[in-house]
Amino acid sequence: MTFRHELAQQLRVDSVRAGDAAGSGHPTSSMSAADLLAAMLDGHLRLDFERPDNPRNDHLIFSKGHASPLLYSCFKAAGAIDDAELLTFRKFGSRLEGHPTPALPWVDVATGSLGQGLPIGVGLALTGKQLDQLPYRVWVVCGDSEMAEGSIWEAFEHAAHANLDNLVAIVDVNRLGQTGETMHGWDVQSYVDRARATGWHAIDIDGHDPEQVEAALSEAESHSGGPTVIVARTKKGKGVTAVEDLTGKHGKPLPDAAEAIEELGGARDLRVTVSKPDSGELTQAFRVEGADLPRYEVGEEVATRKAYGQTLRAVGSRRGDVVAMDGEVSNSTHSEQFREGHPERYFEMYIAEQQMIAAAVGMQVRGWRPFASTFAAFLTRAYDFIRMAAVSRADLCLMGSHAGVAIGEDGPSQMALEDLAALRAVHGSTVLYPCDANQTAKLLEPMADRPGISYLRTSRGGHPVIYGPDEEFEIGGSKVVRDGNDVTLVGAGVTLHEAVRAADLLAEEGIRARVIDLYSIKPVDTATLRAAAEQTSGLVTAEDHWPEGGLGDTVLAALAESGTMAPVHKLAVPAMPGSGKPAELLRQAAIDAEAIAEAARRLVRQPSMA
Amino acid sequence: MTFRHELAQQLRVDSVRAGDAAGSGHPTSSMSAADLLAAMLDGHLRLDFERPDNPRNDHLIFSKGHASPLLYSCFKAAGAIDDAELLTFRKFGSRLEGHPTPALPWVDVATGSLGQGLPIGVGLALTGKQLDQLPYRVWVVCGDSEMAEGSIWEAFEHAAHANLDNLVAIVDVNRLGQTGETMHGWDVQSYVDRARATGWHAIDIDGHDPEQVEAALSEAESHSGGPTVIVARTKKGKGVTAVEDLTGKHGKPLPDAAEAIEELGGARDLRVTVSKPDSGELTQAFRVEGADLPRYEVGEEVATRKAYGQTLRAVGSRRGDVVAMDGEVSNSTHSEQFREGHPERYFEMYIAEQQMIAAAVGMQVRGWRPFASTFAAFLTRAYDFIRMAAVSRADLCLMGSHAGVAIGEDGPSQMALEDLAALRAVHGSTVLYPCDANQTAKLLEPMADRPGISYLRTSRGGHPVIYGPDEEFEIGGSKVVRDGNDVTLVGAGVTLHEAVRAADLLAEEGIRARVIDLYSIKPVDTATLRAAAEQTSGLVTAEDHWPEGGLGDTVLAALAESGTMAPVHKLAVPAMPGSGKPAELLRQAAIDAEAIAEAARRLVRQPSMA
Repeated sequence: MTFRHELAQQLRVDSVRAGDAAGSGHPTSSMSAADLLAAMLDGHLRLDFERPDNPRNDHLIFSKGHASPLLYSCFKAAGAIDDAELLTFRKFGSRLEGHPTPALPWVDVATGSLGQGLPIGVGLALTGKQLDQLPYRVWVVCGDSEMAEGSIWEAFEHAAHANLDNLVAIVDVNRLGQTGETMHGWDVQSYVDRARATGWHAIDIDGHDPEQVEAALSEAESHSGGPTVIVARTKKGKGVTAVEDLTGKHGKPLPDAAEAIEELGGARDLRVTVSKPDSGELTQAFRVEGADLPRYEVGEEVATRKAYGQTLRAVGSRRGDVVAMDGEVSNSTHSEQFREGHPERYFEMYIAEQQMIAAAVGMQVRGWRPFASTFAAFLTRAYDFIRMAAVSRADLCLMGSHAGVAIGEDGPSQMALEDLAALRAVHGSTVLYPCDANQTAKLLEPMADRPGISYLRTSRGGHPVIYGPDEEFEIGGSKVVRDGNDVTLVGAGVTLHEAVRAADLLAEEGIRARVIDLYSIKPVDTATLRAAAEQTSGLVTAEDHWPEGGLGDTVLAALAESGTMAPVHKLAVPAMPGSGKPAELLRQAAIDAEAIAEAARRLVRQPSMA
Repeated sequence: MTFRHELAQQLRVDSVRAGDAAGSGHPTSSMSAADLLAAMLDGHLRLDFERPDNPRNDHLIFSKGHASPLLYSCFKAAGAIDDAELLTFRKFGSRLEGHPTPALPWVDVATGSLGQGLPIGVGLALTGKQLDQLPYRVWVVCGDSEMAEGSIWEAFEHAAHANLDNLVAIVDVNRLGQTGETMHGWDVQSYVDRARATGWHAIDIDGHDPEQVEAALSEAESHSGGPTVIVARTKKGKGVTAVEDLTGKHGKPLPDAAEAIEELGGARDLRVTVSKPDSGELTQAFRVEGADLPRYEVGEEVATRKAYGQTLRAVGSRRGDVVAMDGEVSNSTHSEQFREGHPERYFEMYIAEQQMIAAAVGMQVRGWRPFASTFAAFLTRAYDFIRMAAVSRADLCLMGSHAGVAIGEDGPSQMALEDLAALRAVHGSTVLYPCDANQTAKLLEPMADRPGISYLRTSRGGHPVIYGPDEEFEIGGSKVVRDGNDVTLVGAGVTLHEAVRAADLLAEEGIRARVIDLYSIKPVDTATLRAAAEQTSGLVTAEDHWPEGGLGDTVLAALAESGTMAPVHKLAVPAMPGSGKPAELLRQAAIDAEAIAEAARRLVRQPSMA
């Protein structure tokens, strides 16, 4: 155990050195877990640092992402990075960011928003069991502060439910949060009780006792039938008197690094030989069958959510890498279609949207392409997870159904009216909002190849199919569904149908309206919008969404970026809706055909006063 | 118990009738809990329906908001609404929306996004104990499906931690979710184990056995020292063979309402006399002390987050209704200032942002004005709660610190870059982003009187105070900090300082730039923007935020709405940042003075090609 002790001291020293070089960071939160990580590296973790894409590699996730100095010190000890790079910690251009990101090849996902690493670990463990069917293990290092996040308990629930004995969580109970003691302090039993109540195998240890640490790690590896948590009582800042177990020492370099390093026995340059897994194939052999995308007849009434489910099932046959999951509303989102066709690649995530998105993030780490669906309104529950998925450079697809006031009777709690704004504001995202079933079908397959977070907004109610089954749609495109040079009407989804109706109303009055189906909200077809701005008296945009950040603002931004000035009149939901029939609510919100036509009339009459 | 049985059957019949009249809704989810509610109404709940503002009233929250037919049937049985109104369920204009909202005076908060009622109940129970110091009880009816939401476990943790023996949760374990069986089915012990592990008093009963129900409610009322949960095994659709305990019967009217009503013993017209609490004062007497707002000297370097803490403490002295809470980062947000000044009105919510916002929603129900703070990035964790708070017509204040790339070394997980978009897209919200300490101080106090959700974005780093301590700022206003007619630079917060520097750079070249401090992002000062658009060659907007939905889009929307056309060049963060010094990251994102000046030069040279 002497080597491990020396290794742990090196991890502490290097954490102190990294924080000192950066002038910031979280060395004390690193020092508490150093003995745990030293033991894990030396004999338990199986990770080929030279081949980070080896499918049989274990996965190591620092859910307590602020302990990045410890993680990077581990990478150094394993020979993956050198000491010079360690000291670039938190500097501009360094891969060693303040909190871990996949800028480093041994970091699967970004952490730093607490409570996310464990649910993502659940996703990876599900992948190992059910998709990859490979014997890798997922190790997640959690802080005790983050145990207050509900997402941690979603993960506990799901991991036990799915019997994930390839998942090991290590909770570093160093007692102290950022501002003071955590809710439970050193009451490790409180964590053990909770974990056991959810069905986990729980082991509590002194996290600084090498024999207890070794025994716990071995026990976790040999335990079968369910996940294991090691609840380790530790001291924050362990090993340095000036900071050990003291409040007020969170998130800052040690007051005297040289003195601290001396107390820790000085700098070392040990290398640990991390076990490698058996080498496996580097690419999955995804099963592929022929299957045609569904085709819908023009005029047929089909909800776009239904087209989603039917198409996703077909895409799942054409591509073996596609997986689907749902937040216990699969009969509403129609993801049940996929479940029926591909039960081995479908995951019921129950009503736990954070765990759902986290699972998707975990699965895409291993090259699978997840489609996660629920009511669009409830994707807001997982907004921080979606935000962080972008930091993780995750490639995944989201579908939100039941958008807008057009859902009708269920009322505002179920109406997504901010989803376009929220999803547009995710870095690198794609936002699509089809109006008919064939369009939905055609957009869905390219989503599966799209980098980043792709979001498809679908509608509850059925609408007539307006595009033939051979019409092509590209992400970033749009369709001019009515030509005309007097005024332009821009809609998507539900409002596209209203805009077409408005064009009919206007035609009766001799006003020829161009109607643009802006199904690709991001990226947006600037050229078509610009042409409309230049060729007609102005644009009326209509959206089943709050006025902020949605379709109308997209149009304004696109025109501004292209240097095109034109009157734009934005119609959006102006007030809190209640229940009612879809038509009543569209009318009340003034985003129906009559309202669009009226705005268009005003534009045509007085373009400058629109 | 016969009366209670008859009452329960009436609640079932009325739930069936309401769903039948609406043609939609969730009668089966209502029927499972009817015996529980009948007993609660008849002898346990203390609520004066004629005086819903009686401060001593108990609070009844349907966390399973989809069981609204049951809630409304209870209101009818209590004489609060009549039968005719019951049958307006889910119709346009009715107060009886698909899911409960405060359109009804006996509904404190909107529910329907699952997992929110219990954490809000925790907020109300905290209010009863610590703020109101009144003996009311908070009853929360939960579904079993929603027990999968992590927010429920945040609530369990916090309620036990705060010893909330004025809180009773009733879990209606009817086994069946929307699509199938829940994770735990009728394993009521699994819920009991989890509840006990978190420190709750747990009672498991047959939810259809009147004696067990009565005993459990009495035990819950007499239990002291901590919260009680009644885990009730029930049957979905109880009492009607065509639906009882069957899958596929969720969220739809009964197949044959007349037959169901007959099986339930026919319609009844019972009235239950709900106990009234002692009458209490109708208004709180909030303690008020004189205290001056802090004043900062021009030129002094103060972070706006620090001004937030100092000002909030002063506002807390001036107004006894103001309370504050934080997600365990009070030394970063500086809400610790309030805690030190007003410990009796400060709540440590630990790292559980969903529970934090829910607690704020609960507190404002009773007339308190909560200020909830954390890193702006982590408010995204509670986005669904903020969305629903707007549906609840909640009046509360949020502060998000550490906005944008300007935080520097901590990296993207800690950088709010979507918060302006997300908060703008909350209905009725106010979004403020001050650039200096005096401005922060002056904006904070009116926030406390603002209806709806008000959000203040603050910065990590210190910036020189540019406004004198007597300068006035109003919500919805802006400040022209430099005059000029060549071009307009629009910034807020960090970028306002960059815009001023840009104006200096441009002045050296003879370009006179107008600089607008757009500290009020929503509502926005359209008149000032319009004047700038008309009087200068164009606008450059700069924001420490993704390009979508933030300051730039606000400006575009304001100009479009006012019918003003002008070139607008939007600068925003274009790519995923890493770690670095604030100046390095502002430079990389091209939102610093040099980038603003360069965009302005291009506008001045070629306004139409901006």
